[in-house]
Amino acid sequence: MAKAMRIAIAQINPTVGDIEGNARKIVDYARRAKRLGAGIVVFPELALCGYPPEDLLLKPSFIDENIKNIHQVARSITGITAIVGFADRAKGGLYNAAALINERKIKGIYRKMRLPNYGVFDEKRYFKEGAEPLMFKQDGITCGIAICEDIWAPDGLLKARARKGAEVVFAINASPYHSGKIKERQDVVKKQARRDKVFVVYVNMVGGQDELVFDGQSFAADKSGSIIARAKAFEEDLFMIDTGAKTKPLPPLAELEEIYRALVLGLKDYVQKNGFKRVVIGLSGGVDSALTAAIAKEALGEENTVGVFMPSVYTSQMSRIDSAELANGLGIKLFTIPIDNVFRMYLQDLEGVFKGRLRDSTEENLQARIRGNMLMALSNKFGYLVLTTGNKSEISCGYCTLYGDMAGGFSVLKDVPKTLVYKLAKSVVNKKRQVIPERIIKRPPTAELRPNQKDTDTLPPYNALDPIIEAYVEKDRSLQDMIRKGVKKETALRVISMVDKSEYKRRQAPPGIKITPKAFGKDRRMPITHRFIEKG
Amino acid sequence: MAKAMRIAIAQINPTVGDIEGNARKIVDYARRAKRLGAGIVVFPELALCGYPPEDLLLKPSFIDENIKNIHQVARSITGITAIVGFADRAKGGLYNAAALINERKIKGIYRKMRLPNYGVFDEKRYFKEGAEPLMFKQDGITCGIAICEDIWAPDGLLKARARKGAEVVFAINASPYHSGKIKERQDVVKKQARRDKVFVVYVNMVGGQDELVFDGQSFAADKSGSIIARAKAFEEDLFMIDTGAKTKPLPPLAELEEIYRALVLGLKDYVQKNGFKRVVIGLSGGVDSALTAAIAKEALGEENTVGVFMPSVYTSQMSRIDSAELANGLGIKLFTIPIDNVFRMYLQDLEGVFKGRLRDSTEENLQARIRGNMLMALSNKFGYLVLTTGNKSEISCGYCTLYGDMAGGFSVLKDVPKTLVYKLAKSVVNKKRQVIPERIIKRPPTAELRPNQKDTDTLPPYNALDPIIEAYVEKDRSLQDMIRKGVKKETALRVISMVDKSEYKRRQAPPGIKITPKAFGKDRRMPITHRFIEKG
Repeated sequence: MAKAMRIAIAQINPTVGDIEGNARKIVDYARRAKRLGAGIVVFPELALCGYPPEDLLLKPSFIDENIKNIHQVARSITGITAIVGFADRAKGGLYNAAALINERKIKGIYRKMRLPNYGVFDEKRYFKEGAEPLMFKQDGITCGIAICEDIWAPDGLLKARARKGAEVVFAINASPYHSGKIKERQDVVKKQARRDKVFVVYVNMVGGQDELVFDGQSFAADKSGSIIARAKAFEEDLFMIDTGAKTKPLPPLAELEEIYRALVLGLKDYVQKNGFKRVVIGLSGGVDSALTAAIAKEALGEENTVGVFMPSVYTSQMSRIDSAELANGLGIKLFTIPIDNVFRMYLQDLEGVFKGRLRDSTEENLQARIRGNMLMALSNKFGYLVLTTGNKSEISCGYCTLYGDMAGGFSVLKDVPKTLVYKLAKSVVNKKRQVIPERIIKRPPTAELRPNQKDTDTLPPYNALDPIIEAYVEKDRSLQDMIRKGVKKETALRVISMVDKSEYKRRQAPPGIKITPKAFGKDRRMPITHRFIEKG
Repeated sequence: MAKAMRIAIAQINPTVGDIEGNARKIVDYARRAKRLGAGIVVFPELALCGYPPEDLLLKPSFIDENIKNIHQVARSITGITAIVGFADRAKGGLYNAAALINERKIKGIYRKMRLPNYGVFDEKRYFKEGAEPLMFKQDGITCGIAICEDIWAPDGLLKARARKGAEVVFAINASPYHSGKIKERQDVVKKQARRDKVFVVYVNMVGGQDELVFDGQSFAADKSGSIIARAKAFEEDLFMIDTGAKTKPLPPLAELEEIYRALVLGLKDYVQKNGFKRVVIGLSGGVDSALTAAIAKEALGEENTVGVFMPSVYTSQMSRIDSAELANGLGIKLFTIPIDNVFRMYLQDLEGVFKGRLRDSTEENLQARIRGNMLMALSNKFGYLVLTTGNKSEISCGYCTLYGDMAGGFSVLKDVPKTLVYKLAKSVVNKKRQVIPERIIKRPPTAELRPNQKDTDTLPPYNALDPIIEAYVEKDRSLQDMIRKGVKKETALRVISMVDKSEYKRRQAPPGIKITPKAFGKDRRMPITHRFIEKG
């Protein structure tokens, strides 16, 4: 490239369905980019309507509104070229598209050619595949456009067909976060940039949307395949790139820090985009609720985070002291509501029906459900959103009570295995000062629903459990595979059985933030009713 | 067709993932068909692994087991040709396939060419599209195979390419029920049979699978497009067809009867395939719980249906009398567990936290949640599955309490609008004798959570509400469309707002049986977080 180009990456956080609000943001970013001297400003995939809009895309009125606004956006942009993602209706179908805007006009439309329909993606449910490339000249340089999945084609054929001769490719994305994803993206882009001798500008969305969080971290790779620039992580950014300049980006975030920030942004956006201000969390004296509270404080501020301690006869003094210390350290309000009176009254009123039956998990679940009710009562009375505190290990095994500790609007740690919960508590939250009391991290985990209960009464130790969950839930490994990898057959069978049998609970779980390659929710769609059993 | 053929439709009810069990059933049906003189026996789509297996299809061990068993099935069948649906792994991909079996061998494999990826279907998530037709001779007659979506191609091109020259086409299906579906299927088949002068044998699955129920009602159309035979509805059937014979099938079930039987089978299979025996239902004295109890009794027997009456100070004497009369009429056991003591204790323990706040919906929800807890305690103690009783009108508007009346494993009326609840109660359940007391059907609906409460305090009258729900939820109509159709703008806006705002509740609702063209659950995939608002 003899000539140079100043490119603005508009790494924005749109809200699904807030089409007018997103349009205003797009116009505002375009104007700022122009003032900063950019010749072109590039927005993420479906920036105008938000991603993923899911079945809103089936509403003709939603598409109409989005088409009306892409024209409105075009009319408002002058003095700079803009690439804006929107949902295009054409030739009797709907397309995941990018408008090329210049001097108040839509000069061309690129329609995504490869539609992901795996994992969390359902794009073939909504969109048709585009067939035509869109090439254009910017500052005398030949440019092409790609949308997200387009560039993940291993064969590179698509590249040749759709963007042949391009010196610069603008790849616009709504690429959901999971731990390690930035490396995957960079590897794909680096390889293609090098092979095809093309400068690639990878523009990602940022923000939380239900179970997904988009991490931003937009970047550029030069023709040699070197990453020369990277925008902010987990924040909006208007990031300038000069194709001629030699720069070196800062290294990406450390793994744990990155996961933590994904959880913070995912929570913040869920709460705020849904019109809530405050959250309430049941603090048990355990590490899951402690970490959840720390994340909530980080996301929403201590004034918007409320803790509730709900002791019973089985609650240790330790839990009481540690919860108070935690709330104090975080600077959050703490209510205490004992549950024994209500618990005794349930038992009394159920006595006739339960006559002659021994105590069992019924009474344990009942305590968890009383706590769930107390939290929901606070939610109803004060407009708080209840955060559940279960982690991926528990939710995998069904070691949680439906309508009890599973009651709430958002499940912050749903995709965080217990061993990772400990790491985040120790190495991120407590990095600078001890926010989470050490004893909370050190004591053996317990639900405190009966005397001397330990998690290990029911579950294998977490350092044995978590790798089995990763193999079975995230990687669909067979029992045979696991045994070959050294897992004890009995342990694997026990875990598999727990995972399979608790699908009905997960179906009624609140959404939570995906941070691993496969989360529960729309990422893993298992039938409740089935009799498939792994053979040993 | 000068020659004639005796065809056996094996309308079976497989269980997802019970591959060995399904294989045994397939072999058993094939042997019975042979004994009855059939030359060919035809099983439904994916009969071997069950439908839809969802993400079980992503497990290599699941596919292995299914491949192993199709060979086992083939080796066990002799003296009759069989067409058996299974998941085929070939050319690096997975296919929704049919094995043509003859004399203990798989003679050919047909792979589905058109994959549905809309509504409840996600087939492009799992399968590749087949490309090759499979034609064969049976009794000297040229036959072809189609799988479900294959025959719904409006252009008929596929028919020409895939089954050119066929005199008989075997269309194997797992076609989920909704009211009116049998007519849609017959219309498609009749048209194609007539146009292409082909005899079509439409083989459907039967049975319940999570939110879906397959209604059976397999049928055959002759070359003139006349329906000449129809197998049983909502039951397994081994149904014989002689291509030469002139027969006339019985008329299909009446609409209400058909819906009722869909609900009965959907419930029965959910309960039994998940290993439960008994269900428990909170009886309120209202029509929803009455209808749910009647369906449960029909599905599982009175000995396996338990009612619980949970009165509060707001419960009328009428509700008490009518619930007792209902239980008596159904012959089911009825527990009575008052909730006032527990309710008072919650209020007492929350007094400090709620100080200075007026009563509001918090206290109403609390009552509903106490009832939910009581039912779950019975479930935990006795192994009952809790049935929720909410109808589609309530669930659409969020007129229900999360973890309260929404607590339970299965939601029988989830897709049944309130106006249809009344019709089913009056015209099906009470058809022969008055099982549901008349007053339950006649009294104005009330949640009885505060003095003199009526549903119409919160919702429009159901006869005005239900058409709006149908337009907005099932048909994605815009506000403008509804106004054009005569709906009052204020009413429509109020309903739309309630529907949109309660998505978070539905995300945590138990599964229920789809009986309309669009149900909640995987049929309607709305984001929780979004700000799209219909404009007036």
